[in-house]
Amino acid sequence: MQTPEKTIPAAPEYESGAAYIDGAFMPVIQAAIPVLHGGYRRSDVTYDVVGVWDGNFFRLDDHIARFRASIRALHMEPAESDAEIIEILHRLVALAGLRSAYVSMECLRGAPKPGLPRHPANCRSYLSCHAIPWQSVATHEMFERGMHLMISSVLRIPPESFDPTVKNFHWGDLTRSMFEAKAAGADYSVLLDSDGNITEGPGFNVFCIRDSVVVCPARGALKGITQKSVLELCDELGLKSEVRDITAEEFRNADEIFTCTTAGGVMPASRIDGRRLNNDRPGPISTRLKDLFWSKRTEGWHASPVRYELAAKVASCPDPS
Amino acid sequence: MQTPEKTIPAAPEYESGAAYIDGAFMPVIQAAIPVLHGGYRRSDVTYDVVGVWDGNFFRLDDHIARFRASIRALHMEPAESDAEIIEILHRLVALAGLRSAYVSMECLRGAPKPGLPRHPANCRSYLSCHAIPWQSVATHEMFERGMHLMISSVLRIPPESFDPTVKNFHWGDLTRSMFEAKAAGADYSVLLDSDGNITEGPGFNVFCIRDSVVVCPARGALKGITQKSVLELCDELGLKSEVRDITAEEFRNADEIFTCTTAGGVMPASRIDGRRLNNDRPGPISTRLKDLFWSKRTEGWHASPVRYELAAKVASCPDPS
Repeated sequence: MQTPEKTIPAAPEYESGAAYIDGAFMPVIQAAIPVLHGGYRRSDVTYDVVGVWDGNFFRLDDHIARFRASIRALHMEPAESDAEIIEILHRLVALAGLRSAYVSMECLRGAPKPGLPRHPANCRSYLSCHAIPWQSVATHEMFERGMHLMISSVLRIPPESFDPTVKNFHWGDLTRSMFEAKAAGADYSVLLDSDGNITEGPGFNVFCIRDSVVVCPARGALKGITQKSVLELCDELGLKSEVRDITAEEFRNADEIFTCTTAGGVMPASRIDGRRLNNDRPGPISTRLKDLFWSKRTEGWHASPVRYELAAKVASCPDPS
Repeated sequence: MQTPEKTIPAAPEYESGAAYIDGAFMPVIQAAIPVLHGGYRRSDVTYDVVGVWDGNFFRLDDHIARFRASIRALHMEPAESDAEIIEILHRLVALAGLRSAYVSMECLRGAPKPGLPRHPANCRSYLSCHAIPWQSVATHEMFERGMHLMISSVLRIPPESFDPTVKNFHWGDLTRSMFEAKAAGADYSVLLDSDGNITEGPGFNVFCIRDSVVVCPARGALKGITQKSVLELCDELGLKSEVRDITAEEFRNADEIFTCTTAGGVMPASRIDGRRLNNDRPGPISTRLKDLFWSKRTEGWHASPVRYELAAKVASCPDPS
């Protein structure tokens, strides 16, 4: 599919995106995190990303609920309520004039309050959010030919160290695996846990299909909202789905493989560790799921229309600096 | 020991510290990382911290060598040479007018170059450094009574996921363990690996002593430069030292325990999981090591005098913005 064109006029400074940090709206290129804040120097931050496609947020309430659960898990207390966060996100998309957008909400800790010990409990937490033009994990070429995946030798950070259902920026393992994938000529990596089971890739969940049964990992990965959507689509199509452990061996020998994420939707793969699936093309069931995902999106599935009128409200505010 | 007084006059805007980001010097309160850069949103960054005490860097060359090794491990290529980084650090301490300082050097990735896929190899890397007043992991009270430690239920991120010898901001496990320590009434946590062996704590290495043998973990932790210094001090004092696996059980039953880091030096503990060591006070061998560490520092051990004359060179430059 083609990304819908931007049709809403934006102020020039907001053309590359709009951001909100701790009470202030600004062009995204001005948005930055102080080097002394825990959000940067301890990666003490959780985030969520919701997509806007053709003027509609997708499953905004689900993303907000997951974001709030992550915030609580990290003992953070931002000033904004869920309703206020929702209004901020609408306003950011409106300010940037985007019909399709990648919209990030982040909650991070600052620096310890003066005079108190260096404990995260002594740091206030605050929000940083931004809306930028739509991004996709898979390029147009990858959508056409199918993604080329490899199983990395790097193990995913285990839940015993950091809970992967609390969406986070601890990407050192994923980044390392991306260099390994590049060296092997693959587009992206998929990581195992220490038991040898499939977890996830850099920014996406994974599924495999064998004998028309659609399977995704039960543990060690983010509980993706696109993943949840795919499981709903399986029900709609009468496809059997399972959420359980998947060994590397089972994954490598699958009939089909696809990945999924907010930034890209359903993305079929055509190679795993050099093995060609479906004559080196996206598989038929993966493609049906992808097509249904987008046709339902177009029909307004779980959609919340962006309140573009909110742009005017911010644009008329005095400069927050 | 008391922190030596600040005796060098600094421009008012530099009083809370000085920073350098990608070619520009600025007050530390202005230093920030763009929200779209990998250094923040992928924690795609490595760092090192060198201490300045009473006008002298400690083991500056060792820190620079470790920092450069970490940069290479992450496939980063900042513009600055080692000699240039050293000059930047001297200048930052001079600008801030600090006789004793916490000096951080960080190398991080930016955003992918326009038009290229979202791969870290498509991002340039750059330096962010700063000098701020001396910080200590242990407070004055903790130095007096000994640190109260607990062994956390959170496991340290394993080397199979991210190499702990590449100093990094993946602190999610450490942060979680600090909340657990606080709830248990302890000052700090110590984390195990999945084999049940001791690794390190939030920002420090650990040692234990049994029958006058000084032991630190062989794996799963940063190769600390203060740790290395302590091993040298053991030789000087004729104390036997060992670098090997330490079980939780051995650690809990040690005669003495101490922690060590750039930000604090040698820090004796007096409690572990509620058990009192040495009548609830810092142990005698730990204290000998701590005292020798500081007396040698005062005598100029591995010292590089700060080149305070470099402050003038920057102060007279035009505003980099």
